[in-house]
Amino acid sequence: ARSYSITLLPGDGIGPEVVAVAKDVLSVAGSKEGVELRFREMLMGGAALDAAGVPLPDETLAAARASDAILLGAIGGYKWDNNEKHLKPETGLLNIRAGLGVFANLRPATVLPQLVDASTLKKEVAEGVDIMVVRELTGGIYFGKPRGFGTNDKGEETGFNTEIYSAAEIDRIARVAFEVARKRGGKLCSVDKANVLEASMLWRKRVTAIASEFPDVELSHMYVDNAAMQLVRNPKQFDTIVTNNIFGDILSDEASMITGSIGMLPSASVGESGPGLFEPIHGSAPDIAGQDKANPLATILSAAMLLKYGLGVESAAKRIEAAVTETLDNGFRTGDIYSPGTTLVGCKRMGEEVLKAL
Amino acid sequence: ARSYSITLLPGDGIGPEVVAVAKDVLSVAGSKEGVELRFREMLMGGAALDAAGVPLPDETLAAARASDAILLGAIGGYKWDNNEKHLKPETGLLNIRAGLGVFANLRPATVLPQLVDASTLKKEVAEGVDIMVVRELTGGIYFGKPRGFGTNDKGEETGFNTEIYSAAEIDRIARVAFEVARKRGGKLCSVDKANVLEASMLWRKRVTAIASEFPDVELSHMYVDNAAMQLVRNPKQFDTIVTNNIFGDILSDEASMITGSIGMLPSASVGESGPGLFEPIHGSAPDIAGQDKANPLATILSAAMLLKYGLGVESAAKRIEAAVTETLDNGFRTGDIYSPGTTLVGCKRMGEEVLKAL
Ligand SMILES: CC(C)[C@H](C(=O)O)[C@@H](O)C(=O)O
Ligand SMILES: CC(C)[C@H](C(=O)O)[C@@H](O)C(=O)O
Repeated sequence: ARSYSITLLPGDGIGPEVVAVAKDVLSVAGSKEGVELRFREMLMGGAALDAAGVPLPDETLAAARASDAILLGAIGGYKWDNNEKHLKPETGLLNIRAGLGVFANLRPATVLPQLVDASTLKKEVAEGVDIMVVRELTGGIYFGKPRGFGTNDKGEETGFNTEIYSAAEIDRIARVAFEVARKRGGKLCSVDKANVLEASMLWRKRVTAIASEFPDVELSHMYVDNAAMQLVRNPKQFDTIVTNNIFGDILSDEASMITGSIGMLPSASVGESGPGLFEPIHGSAPDIAGQDKANPLATILSAAMLLKYGLGVESAAKRIEAAVTETLDNGFRTGDIYSPGTTLVGCKRMGEEVLKAL
Repeated sequence: ARSYSITLLPGDGIGPEVVAVAKDVLSVAGSKEGVELRFREMLMGGAALDAAGVPLPDETLAAARASDAILLGAIGGYKWDNNEKHLKPETGLLNIRAGLGVFANLRPATVLPQLVDASTLKKEVAEGVDIMVVRELTGGIYFGKPRGFGTNDKGEETGFNTEIYSAAEIDRIARVAFEVARKRGGKLCSVDKANVLEASMLWRKRVTAIASEFPDVELSHMYVDNAAMQLVRNPKQFDTIVTNNIFGDILSDEASMITGSIGMLPSASVGESGPGLFEPIHGSAPDIAGQDKANPLATILSAAMLLKYGLGVESAAKRIEAAVTETLDNGFRTGDIYSPGTTLVGCKRMGEEVLKAL
């Protein structure tokens, strides 16, 4: 039997609850396909800060690197919000992304037919939305140097960051995005601000160059401000979107909210080789932590992405997706996606229902 | 009688049509309040590129500076899209903003009761939305240095820009935003990415410091990715938003699309002293240019902002706003805001109806 090691990073807030549920689902789905999964839980985020004084302990990164894939819950909380930068949970997240070299962040924003009413958009605008945002994750203004604080020639304090991309960084994320688009609707929209920023001009030039390797994919370009509008006006016009780190941060969150059910949305972060990082796009929701109210489906669907993109066991991923669909069809809903006429359940029960459906 | 000089910059695409209509409205509204307006039309954008080889001729900037306020139509078009940076219409826009020192860009996003159905958001989510985005306009990554193209240590081509703010730049835009919020709902939300960017950490620190000068305004902070979501989830939670140049570009466009009627939305760009720049937020719409189909109301409402924020003649601004409301109440609609049961009119006719209502 194939056997893989999975690093679990429950993190903070609702992270531990949703990861516990997703772990069971992952185990069962794997075993049905003859895949044995071994789990090791490590500290990250605020949990690591409290226990070890740093948001990403060396042992955590080492264990993650040595494993076949990583499942992360959520990190952060009010408690650490005013920490200095190197002691923020978020810094742990940025460091593990960089440490694993997972430069491609895939964020689906799909409106499921069962949940179309959850969107704040009119039904005819929301239904059928199925977007994949491919966000560059280890470059750009998040990591560019120089960065820091200084003094300008008038003696005033300044804060600064560098948005920088190399041709090689753009080429590799573009290739991932074209591959993804090819397997989806065959349409790729590259989002930039090439009418103002040099970093975006190079982005557009390289994406256009890489397009010649993918003659079957239809490439278009859009400015980021227009993309932010078009997602609201007519989200169905998009198939696959590729963009830089900061624009991807903003647009993927906007796209996810357009579905109305961010408690449902998974993400995958993958690199050239080495283990990928899989996590729900929602946050740690400290206000409902520990109350068995969290929606575990985003983490369960992240586990499906882990099987598909991380381990290449697509059959097991399909099992999970089908089980989630069946659970929704059976009417089970956590509070965030509840509507009259459905059955309100907690985090654990939702997990049990998915296991039953499996 | 008070007398003011206005620079008109019709620009490209539908710019000339909408400016012509707004000019007449401006004249009449001014004269009703005993204010005489003198107009001078200058070249900018693609029109200036074609006629003079640069997107912002020196005479245009000089005339604008010497006048009391500037009304701009729209700039840009396919024709100049592949021009080099210094020959892009957009560069003319950035240069006039910098040249006039108009660091504060006020962008209202208001859902008018007559047009609530134009929004792609559900009626109960869209109705009553009334947001003012205060965007920093002459700093940040749009203007930061160093910028350009280079080669990294692996010999790969790079493109880079600098996001930089000084305390003084943040303080002055924060003060404008607090003043605006004070005259509106008394709530200011500052948007940044202080969990990642040093430029945003300074932003948050300075905005928080300036808050002590405005004890009557309630300040909150939000990360930009969350703001992009919250605008979709529940736009009514926002009163006034203040943010940097690039985040403001993205969020103000998103907010405007939430209203569903970007053909209605004006903007004002003002500095410490000197003339302000007033323009609709929509683009040059080359596809409908010269067909008398454009909606002139955004430019007419920009003229109202010109009277209020540029010349301090608020009574005349109120006249224009009331006339626009009356025209909508009378059922007149251009194509972009048309719905069954209303009267479809062209750009000129819409202008005539507003004049009648005046
Ligand atoms: C927590 C934060 C650093 C992170 C980011 O900006 O990348 C988050 O918003 C995300 O999108 O995963
Ligand atoms: C045309 C472009 C340079 C401009 C900007 O990015 O500022 C536009 O999008 C705007 O918002 O006025």
